[in-house]
Amino acid sequence: MFVSFEGIEASGKSTLLAAVEVALRAQGRNTLRTREPGGTPAGDAMRRVFLDPMFVLEPISEVLLVNASRAELVQRVITPALSAGVIVLCDRYVHSTLAYQGYGRGLPLSTVRMLCEAATGGLMPNITLLVDVSFQTSRRRIAARAHVEDRLELESSDFHDRVRRGFLQMSTLDSRIVVIDGEQSVDRVFEAAMQALGARLP
Amino acid sequence: MFVSFEGIEASGKSTLLAAVEVALRAQGRNTLRTREPGGTPAGDAMRRVFLDPMFVLEPISEVLLVNASRAELVQRVITPALSAGVIVLCDRYVHSTLAYQGYGRGLPLSTVRMLCEAATGGLMPNITLLVDVSFQTSRRRIAARAHVEDRLELESSDFHDRVRRGFLQMSTLDSRIVVIDGEQSVDRVFEAAMQALGARLP
Repeated sequence: MFVSFEGIEASGKSTLLAAVEVALRAQGRNTLRTREPGGTPAGDAMRRVFLDPMFVLEPISEVLLVNASRAELVQRVITPALSAGVIVLCDRYVHSTLAYQGYGRGLPLSTVRMLCEAATGGLMPNITLLVDVSFQTSRRRIAARAHVEDRLELESSDFHDRVRRGFLQMSTLDSRIVVIDGEQSVDRVFEAAMQALGARLP
Repeated sequence: MFVSFEGIEASGKSTLLAAVEVALRAQGRNTLRTREPGGTPAGDAMRRVFLDPMFVLEPISEVLLVNASRAELVQRVITPALSAGVIVLCDRYVHSTLAYQGYGRGLPLSTVRMLCEAATGGLMPNITLLVDVSFQTSRRRIAARAHVEDRLELESSDFHDRVRRGFLQMSTLDSRIVVIDGEQSVDRVFEAAMQALGARLP
């Protein structure tokens, strides 16, 4: 069972992922938590390049770099865990690349898809929990954070709007993507996620 | 005019590139010298990840990472220079990826080619100078160097043999690849390169 968590910045997906992990472990299930880009030593080094505000990357370079990190993660972490029967919980995956670099940056979706497939060998999540919030909510939450913004957080509202609409569009085309209203309380978001997962877990 | 310099480690291609640059400038030509992976701030950061012996990268991840760096180099450095009429001299390019990750690591050449094309938009050198030396010569020269070996220099002789044969195989299929015997003296290598270039320069 491979579950990915998607959404724009500060949608609450990482908070949700942590709560889901605790709940699944309390049920006696083995889980593995990881994130993208990164999740391996080389991938984490690539993540630092990817998010560094010093670098302005070409969109196609973003896709290639995040997929270099992804190929490592799939082959060294996700696939071995799935083979061992572990539930993999991944913070962002292919849908983020389609949303940010495809819908957001305007690269052809077919190119983005092809590069993601080269990296993953076609491995996709069994279920994707898409935590949807408005751009205003995202901004407000980011402003309340203490840490410095990364490169993607600094993008325009137009860009983030395209990304959000991209995520929602994909959810209308793929029944494995479950949209969760991230404007609700943390508890309600968690309940909605567990309900969606419960229906699909063995 | 876009010229790439290829060959296995310590073939003498970088020494040759420097000498060719001096000679072309003495002829009053504008040149730009760059290298792969790297050649841009983000690309140089990727190069450090790529060559770090701490990381063992999956072959497909190597291809994606080097092409992320390449996309930056093509769009920000090589294409603008070519548009301005500058002769670009590049230390390694697409043929290295085909030789190392395709012939060397055994990835399908069609996959490697497709990923390189996504990064470059199909831009290939007008001429490639392939400096060919035996693996024994390469090893002897590396052993004489003071610095620590990088990740690729640490590979087996079988690997480097496949890489060398890959380069030579490509040269039989593409008339833009000129093979220069790198076992000769530095002066002879330089003369052979200038002769090959002279026939093609405007």
